[in-house]
Amino acid sequence: MPETSAPEKLSSFRLAGWSAERLDQIEQALSGWVACPTAAPAPAGLGDAMRYAVLDGGKRLRPLLVMAACEAVGGNPQAALRAACAVELIHAYSLVHDDMPCMDNDVLRRGKPTVHVKFGEAQALLAGDALQALAFEFLTPDDGSVDAATQAGLCRMLASAAGFQGMAGGQAIDLASIGLPLNSAQLHEMHRLKTGALLQASVMMGASCGPASTAVRKALHDYGAAIGLAFQVVDDILDVTADSATLGKTAGKDAAQDKPTFVSLMGLQASKDYAQQLLARALEGVDRLETGGLENTEALRALADMLVNRHH
Amino acid sequence: MPETSAPEKLSSFRLAGWSAERLDQIEQALSGWVACPTAAPAPAGLGDAMRYAVLDGGKRLRPLLVMAACEAVGGNPQAALRAACAVELIHAYSLVHDDMPCMDNDVLRRGKPTVHVKFGEAQALLAGDALQALAFEFLTPDDGSVDAATQAGLCRMLASAAGFQGMAGGQAIDLASIGLPLNSAQLHEMHRLKTGALLQASVMMGASCGPASTAVRKALHDYGAAIGLAFQVVDDILDVTADSATLGKTAGKDAAQDKPTFVSLMGLQASKDYAQQLLARALEGVDRLETGGLENTEALRALADMLVNRHH
Repeated sequence: MPETSAPEKLSSFRLAGWSAERLDQIEQALSGWVACPTAAPAPAGLGDAMRYAVLDGGKRLRPLLVMAACEAVGGNPQAALRAACAVELIHAYSLVHDDMPCMDNDVLRRGKPTVHVKFGEAQALLAGDALQALAFEFLTPDDGSVDAATQAGLCRMLASAAGFQGMAGGQAIDLASIGLPLNSAQLHEMHRLKTGALLQASVMMGASCGPASTAVRKALHDYGAAIGLAFQVVDDILDVTADSATLGKTAGKDAAQDKPTFVSLMGLQASKDYAQQLLARALEGVDRLETGGLENTEALRALADMLVNRHH
Repeated sequence: MPETSAPEKLSSFRLAGWSAERLDQIEQALSGWVACPTAAPAPAGLGDAMRYAVLDGGKRLRPLLVMAACEAVGGNPQAALRAACAVELIHAYSLVHDDMPCMDNDVLRRGKPTVHVKFGEAQALLAGDALQALAFEFLTPDDGSVDAATQAGLCRMLASAAGFQGMAGGQAIDLASIGLPLNSAQLHEMHRLKTGALLQASVMMGASCGPASTAVRKALHDYGAAIGLAFQVVDDILDVTADSATLGKTAGKDAAQDKPTFVSLMGLQASKDYAQQLLARALEGVDRLETGGLENTEALRALADMLVNRHH
């Protein structure tokens, strides 16, 4: 029997159990809230396209980050569940629009035909648009479950992370940079906006579901920045090391399109080292939370580790 | 000198002056807030596309409705200005996406090349997405100018009006109905969602910037529903009676595409009569506001009249 250190065993056991329970909640909420045919029917096939885009077995990394951060600060779980689903809707809509012929023209996503292949381009465009609006509906329930200040703050953070100074801005840089020799600073800036902003917002939205001191917010901010960047570095690594079946999307696409990546800029081994450095930086943020007296931080730690050491 | 009744003279004079002042505020706010190059630069040409889509001399009917409703209830003008701009951003993004080749494939909008013609399809897609996000940023300032409950309520109303049970849902019906013989109920439902929801939300968002009794909200709700529908009836009339130069967009398109319209369903004269009936219904809502003691209602009255009796 191989020897495993106790903390490692404990940590990996906890993440599996912790995630399973939260993923159940998230899937149930998304399934019940996203254009559910019995609850809030969407007209003319729009609901089908929206549900196809969202209820597709994604990793739900962003929702898990929201919930982990909320639990670390002892926040309102109902607010966190709504925030978790809202962030996932923004992520899902961005994938739908990214895959369209005028953008990446991808036909495969998570092993299934992309939304525009399945439902047509016009419906895909509308479904993405409707998913973005729905995210803000999720954040603003009228049932007293989430106080108004939290609702407003969540909307503010999500809108900023999704918009021109966040995800959409990063995509515009991406679009403009195909075939161009970006330097390291430019590549970092593109990914800070394109992928990092929403991952970091997931953490900060979770934190905003409860009370958090300035020091706690700063530690979570640094954690979010590190994993946001690490996620993209790992994505770039997997694009050259994994196959399409494992990834559930077309592998090797960045290189084929001559897109600048961390691997093309730094090389494969240096990229792997960089991802581990970013993981260490994220975990240092969690250390500070613990030094500050927060106890429920294992999930944040384990999610960072999983995100960097994932294989797809 | 032709005799004109005093109230009519007063009313038309007031709308021109009232609108000019508010339009100044709206244009200034949009110009300063939408990806302003000096304030909040958007990367890689995205800001240019966003500004082109928004700062184009639209009629700003929705923003004026927000401000008129806010003034009727004596609401917070700063909240109303933000809500006004947010509604216009949603309207502007919907036009950008609607014009794209996979939707209406329109090359002319307000007399200028559409966004995708000018900036390319990918940038148009991103600009629309970023404008939607920006709308919710506008609604959630962090400067204490708008209380959190108002912010949350505004986000809730706008998200609902823009999403699958509002504008996006109406567009999905529109998409699915080309060449199909819609009956009157189906045509009404399509337009209630596609155009009506956002117009009605403009009125209700303005009302939510201040205190409003249930009776006041109901009267404004009825007003908003009537003008929301009237707007589309008039649009359908103008599509067959006006030329492209006057409209600033391609005239006769609905008929050419065999899209169901009020005119194709009811005939031209009956459509004109219907528009006047809807105007009367809207004004009856304003009467109830006045009976209830509200005084600043002239703008709501004049806007309804202008909307129905417009020529473009």
